Amino acid sequence: MAPDTLTHHAPANQRRFAAIDRPTLVVDRVRAERNIARMAAKAEASGVRFRPHFKTHNSIEVGEWFRAAGVTAITVSSVEHAVRFADAGWDDITIAFPLVTRALPAIRDLASHVRVGVVVEGPDGATALAAVESGMDVWVDVDAGYGRSGARWDDADRLGEIGAALARSRQHRLRGVLTHAGNTYHAPDHTAIEAIWAETAVRLAGARDVLAASTGVRGLEISVGDTPGCAVMNRFDGVDEVRPGNFVFFDIQQLSLDVCTEEDLALAVACPIVGVYPARGEAVIHGGSVQLSLDTAPGPGDGRNFGRLALAEPSGWHLLPAEAGFVRGLSQEHGVLRCSPDVLAQLRVGDLAFVIPAHACLPANQVGHWLVV
Amino acid sequence: MAPDTLTHHAPANQRRFAAIDRPTLVVDRVRAERNIARMAAKAEASGVRFRPHFKTHNSIEVGEWFRAAGVTAITVSSVEHAVRFADAGWDDITIAFPLVTRALPAIRDLASHVRVGVVVEGPDGATALAAVESGMDVWVDVDAGYGRSGARWDDADRLGEIGAALARSRQHRLRGVLTHAGNTYHAPDHTAIEAIWAETAVRLAGARDVLAASTGVRGLEISVGDTPGCAVMNRFDGVDEVRPGNFVFFDIQQLSLDVCTEEDLALAVACPIVGVYPARGEAVIHGGSVQLSLDTAPGPGDGRNFGRLALAEPSGWHLLPAEAGFVRGLSQEHGVLRCSPDVLAQLRVGDLAFVIPAHACLPANQVGHWLVV
Repeated sequence: MAPDTLTHHAPANQRRFAAIDRPTLVVDRVRAERNIARMAAKAEASGVRFRPHFKTHNSIEVGEWFRAAGVTAITVSSVEHAVRFADAGWDDITIAFPLVTRALPAIRDLASHVRVGVVVEGPDGATALAAVESGMDVWVDVDAGYGRSGARWDDADRLGEIGAALARSRQHRLRGVLTHAGNTYHAPDHTAIEAIWAETAVRLAGARDVLAASTGVRGLEISVGDTPGCAVMNRFDGVDEVRPGNFVFFDIQQLSLDVCTEEDLALAVACPIVGVYPARGEAVIHGGSVQLSLDTAPGPGDGRNFGRLALAEPSGWHLLPAEAGFVRGLSQEHGVLRCSPDVLAQLRVGDLAFVIPAHACLPANQVGHWLVV
Repeated sequence: MAPDTLTHHAPANQRRFAAIDRPTLVVDRVRAERNIARMAAKAEASGVRFRPHFKTHNSIEVGEWFRAAGVTAITVSSVEHAVRFADAGWDDITIAFPLVTRALPAIRDLASHVRVGVVVEGPDGATALAAVESGMDVWVDVDAGYGRSGARWDDADRLGEIGAALARSRQHRLRGVLTHAGNTYHAPDHTAIEAIWAETAVRLAGARDVLAASTGVRGLEISVGDTPGCAVMNRFDGVDEVRPGNFVFFDIQQLSLDVCTEEDLALAVACPIVGVYPARGEAVIHGGSVQLSLDTAPGPGDGRNFGRLALAEPSGWHLLPAEAGFVRGLSQEHGVLRCSPDVLAQLRVGDLAFVIPAHACLPANQVGHWLVV
């Protein structure tokens, strides 16, 4: 963190850190707002819509930081979350998850008072939309190579069937094709991420054209949304909308991909230290799989670990080098930190270990206690 | 499930299954109560105290099933959970987690009105207990070979230091030594689990004797608590208290260890199917790492998977063979089921997939929606 950022809040932070008695999310607001501003500016410069994914933070308060940055349209991953953010005043919400047909009654309610975007991955979902009277935005989920959900980009039959089914629900607006290129999370370097971006854009353009031909709808758009791709690309060429989510906090996975810097890491889990074992070179923290999740990132600890150690500073935290402290194991409420001897010698039972999680999304959703610095 | 168990509730179950619109925990009460009764009877026959761990279910309602089976003393893994169950009327609660010294104010409040057991793993925690005026039960956390937390069984120095520190807080009652032999989760067979049990009991007895010698306290007890050990042993020889938790539901890990049968599996996550991909041999469900956790169990899917597929029946669910359906991948809200062609041919978008999780503890804690059949 730059020394001038939160220093003036330092006494208040120290008081609040002192009160932590259980695993607690600590969000660095200055960093998060900087991450938001950077992504929003890049989208604006590229002339594409910025529809950030709120599943990472899933927080009404953090949502307001996006609103302050000019964001008016958001993405969520479940009907439940859509209802939650609609209740908080958001009125343009895409549920970027294959249509849960069982949730149509709740979707119908929601669409009666806010602008809802839904995603269909096949003809069954497209057909089911006829049951919703209010017009919704409809996006077609395209599998551009990640292999999770959606019509394969080259499956013209499925795309055509979806188009034909949608044509029977004229109250809705077919908006375009959408994907999550999650394969960027496994890319070895920036060049590979850029290649996935380019390939995804080309494949989505092809799927869009098939859909346009089968429906006669003009002006169909392309929507993408993975943090590695959106963080690495300087311009969002070839797409109309970006939906990254994780970038608001980043994490050790993203740091390992070199798509953020240490100064961008905006979320830590503050965990009370409950045991120090010099003979093992380890300390035990209150902070287990319930709080940190079993996501892993490359680094020390059999090649993968559950997060890295940071230590509290008056203005936030200070990330240590990977070998100096990392989470080597988790059980439900226990975390085991492996530390270098000099770091371990500084740790005391009752201190706080700040853990930067391997992947921020689950901790942000699972830990009920937040603290904003 | 035996055909006579819940058949009379079948129409009600079908109505309730029909209403599921998001990932939902489904608990088979008949099976859970049978699991509870079996463990309680075994503890009684062995003459040891049954203090079940409530961290697995963390449910006030399931807790009442234990109460109905005669349970009066419980185990939890955090102060927060202890407060929750104390509010629900439980008045003898061991917090089986190394003392979180930062939580002493909350522990002090709790100990003022219910019987609280705490665990200390070293002299710092033992010393910190002086700040709690109300008498508490104190257990010493012993690492009997698992390597997570506690004084090593053969570390007479640390055990002696703990004893000396505890001697300065005479308001508390030193009860004995406690461990979680989590290494049974990695045992290849029953013989190995039995060997770990026997070794753990001998090591704890040694640690108990060191503690008795250093404190002069008589009648110190031995408390253990892992589901594989407690499920496999026919008698709980060599210990005074058992604290298993997972056995109330069991899961695919326990099934793989052969410590339960398919008829003992008492928890499933009902997940709406949102996509079917015959060419891939896969279906996609709403049910991801947020709901199922990233715990894995041995079986198909690169040797490990995130759970196995069951299909709804009027009386509950029917587990399919491992190769017929398993969860091969998870992202935050998506699960990818790999299925045999004949099973996949039965699945439709909008159906429910019942997933028996690899490990029950996290799903039971993370999914907010319960349904008891």
